[in-house]
Amino acid sequence: MGVVLIGHGSKLPYGKRVMEELRRRLEMRGIYRVVRCAFMQINSPSIEEELRELASSGIKKIIALPVFLADGAHTTEDIPEKLKAAFSGEWADIGKDVELIYGKPIGVDERIVDILVDRVKEATAR
Amino acid sequence: MGVVLIGHGSKLPYGKRVMEELRRRLEMRGIYRVVRCAFMQINSPSIEEELRELASSGIKKIIALPVFLADGAHTTEDIPEKLKAAFSGEWADIGKDVELIYGKPIGVDERIVDILVDRVKEATAR
Repeated sequence: MGVVLIGHGSKLPYGKRVMEELRRRLEMRGIYRVVRCAFMQINSPSIEEELRELASSGIKKIIALPVFLADGAHTTEDIPEKLKAAFSGEWADIGKDVELIYGKPIGVDERIVDILVDRVKEATAR
Repeated sequence: MGVVLIGHGSKLPYGKRVMEELRRRLEMRGIYRVVRCAFMQINSPSIEEELRELASSGIKKIIALPVFLADGAHTTEDIPEKLKAAFSGEWADIGKDVELIYGKPIGVDERIVDILVDRVKEATAR
């Protein structure tokens, strides 16, 4: 099983850095065969590139996880379109045996609330 | 002390719902005098509206926390501009005794990695 963390993409370097560090830490958990990043826009690899590479390398089950706080136009329209395009037309062949599962964004979670409490503490401590 | 959770804003309802639920849960912790939401765009209240309301109600210390996964143009340019505008010009008076502290985004955190593991589990269990 391969996990693809999908980020928004940004002209500034921070977003990609955060995604790559989350990827590295998720990989270190040792649960998944491969863990990769892909970006909806601006940064590379693109969603299409990364999915095609994983499929070409023989990964048969791919979980595409939007690393977004909440659903929005990006997670409900833009990313699903790119997931569909990855294995369409001339690329249909490399995706034909691949099970592609699209996950949910981070959403409401008590651990996010914990992090927010810490960020307030840090802000007032500076 | 008042905490303002700053969200991106979206035409779809999900982002605001997630923000309001995070706000409610943070408020339930009972740590801060007030916890509010404000939105960078589209949804209301705007950042300027919320800051002015808190200042008018007598809150003297406000922590504005960007509920974003990573720094980017929004957190380094757009939101700081709005924070500055909130107590500028004709509104300078209501902000003159207010200490406004701008916090950091969520960033890399092991608890985010924990959540991603859960989201992968949920996606494969469906």
